[in-house]
Amino acid sequence: MTNKSYNFQLSEKFIINNFLKKLNLNTTGTFNFENDAAFLKTSSKIKTVVTTDTIVENIDFFTNDPPESIAQKIMCVNLSDISAMGAKPKTYTLNLSINSTIDKTWLKRFSKHLSKIQKKYKMYLLGGDISRSKEISLTITCFGESILKNIINQKNSRLGDDIWVTGDLGNSFLGYNKMIKKPKFKFEKKHIKKLKNFYLYPEPCMFGSKASKYINAAVDISDGFYGDLQKILHGKFGAKISRESIPISDIAKKFLTDNPNKIKFSDILSWGDDYELLFTSFKKNRKKLLTLAKKNKVKISLVGSIINKTGIYDDSLRPIINTNSFDHFC
Amino acid sequence: MTNKSYNFQLSEKFIINNFLKKLNLNTTGTFNFENDAAFLKTSSKIKTVVTTDTIVENIDFFTNDPPESIAQKIMCVNLSDISAMGAKPKTYTLNLSINSTIDKTWLKRFSKHLSKIQKKYKMYLLGGDISRSKEISLTITCFGESILKNIINQKNSRLGDDIWVTGDLGNSFLGYNKMIKKPKFKFEKKHIKKLKNFYLYPEPCMFGSKASKYINAAVDISDGFYGDLQKILHGKFGAKISRESIPISDIAKKFLTDNPNKIKFSDILSWGDDYELLFTSFKKNRKKLLTLAKKNKVKISLVGSIINKTGIYDDSLRPIINTNSFDHFC
Repeated sequence: MTNKSYNFQLSEKFIINNFLKKLNLNTTGTFNFENDAAFLKTSSKIKTVVTTDTIVENIDFFTNDPPESIAQKIMCVNLSDISAMGAKPKTYTLNLSINSTIDKTWLKRFSKHLSKIQKKYKMYLLGGDISRSKEISLTITCFGESILKNIINQKNSRLGDDIWVTGDLGNSFLGYNKMIKKPKFKFEKKHIKKLKNFYLYPEPCMFGSKASKYINAAVDISDGFYGDLQKILHGKFGAKISRESIPISDIAKKFLTDNPNKIKFSDILSWGDDYELLFTSFKKNRKKLLTLAKKNKVKISLVGSIINKTGIYDDSLRPIINTNSFDHFC
Repeated sequence: MTNKSYNFQLSEKFIINNFLKKLNLNTTGTFNFENDAAFLKTSSKIKTVVTTDTIVENIDFFTNDPPESIAQKIMCVNLSDISAMGAKPKTYTLNLSINSTIDKTWLKRFSKHLSKIQKKYKMYLLGGDISRSKEISLTITCFGESILKNIINQKNSRLGDDIWVTGDLGNSFLGYNKMIKKPKFKFEKKHIKKLKNFYLYPEPCMFGSKASKYINAAVDISDGFYGDLQKILHGKFGAKISRESIPISDIAKKFLTDNPNKIKFSDILSWGDDYELLFTSFKKNRKKLLTLAKKNKVKISLVGSIINKTGIYDDSLRPIINTNSFDHFC
């Protein structure tokens, strides 16, 4: 339909020229955003890995969250998927559905933050679309590159594989609970800013492309540890997990100790948004992985192994029951 | 955020397995939708052309429009852009933001229609994302293929070029006016179904890839004839247009005659949604283009030429004033 821009103070052209154009870095194929499509630079050896995610107001972010946080989140969910595929991010398209609460200041801050993320990951904006809507909603389709043999298939875990987790879990769960109106537990003043920032500015773990040749299967923890682990097991294998080895942040550990009736370990493990990686690797790769992780300043923790019996078990092979999680398309 | 599926009767997994999985046609790189990303099959000679569009409830379609119509529209806006780039569509990702008004029947009808369109254009679904939202909104990122030299740049029109239009304009404008609550003019019973269908089921003109080697610049008429023509002129050239040569549908002609005070020629030319192509070509290509069009059963009309003086003029070089249109990102 054509009248999507009527009565809308900021025209698409205005937004593109003032806030988005500089993000294409004059790259061939973007046509400086003057075409209705763009093209990817590809070669026969390099495969283009594609992922896409949408985030929606009041579901994935709060309406008044800083625009920098919204930019960080939509990029993070996509970058995290690219990393889990063993690929390096290259470019992205952006679909912005916005309403009249969005003003120039918002767009300036939003696009400035995108630019900052682009620089960090050496990416450029390939193109996109801007629509008017009641709810704010954003879609990024992200393109990464990898040689075919290094692309990680989520379903390629092998019997006996080590199971690894990057970083620490828990801070995003606590950050979210600080952001909601009636948090279940009290927060110490010194933790508030840190936790809020974990929730507002999640960082994807980009270890996937660095370690892809040692990884059999990988997934980003966006839906909760157990749920994402189940994706890797895909009904074929099981996992023996040493709960004590699951890396939990120091603050989360303190919360667990201080609020035994209000917060459970399983709450943290059922929560996503930490955007760490869960991956499996042959046992023989342990030393190589640890060296590579150290070199890239990424914490990795060995949390268990792939076993023949389906299900998720603890060290004593007792079933771990709480497996709430969410499913994903691509 | 993780709890996007809570209290939502149709899980993402359910939707994927029941309605979307069959759309991947078991193509390598889709991982049968079991990964969080996919990869494109590419070669060094073939470039991957990318376009993306979002359509939103109550802006781009009516809430109660048939799901087949919504599928048709989101595919059409994308396919039309791929065609205007001179490329052949190959694959696409789909982001569905849906609410509780969407049920199994809706999804079945929607995905069945996607499947029909896929078959027609020999495409497959690469991946996507499903989110919950208050408003229904859909994004497709569409991938086409072309060799580099045949990719059409919207800004590549040449002085003296012929200006061509495919198909007929007008029916979508009338169809939209039939769909709204208080239409400005009366419709004859025999026209109602046809006009509604034009609005609900727009067909992209896929002549772009067929004729790309004879086309200098092209755009799909999604924002109105004059507005899209201006994109091709991009402030550098002007156009002399023979108004009588602009192809208008027979029904639209009748409406113009019967309702001289309620509908103007410029209303039709300022309206998009016909998804025909507007393109320029060297004069020497006329015969070749006409032969090619006939072979592909596409109507093409020569409507004017590119001139040195900026602006849009009629045959007598009088400026044509009405140039309302809309701007686009990519």
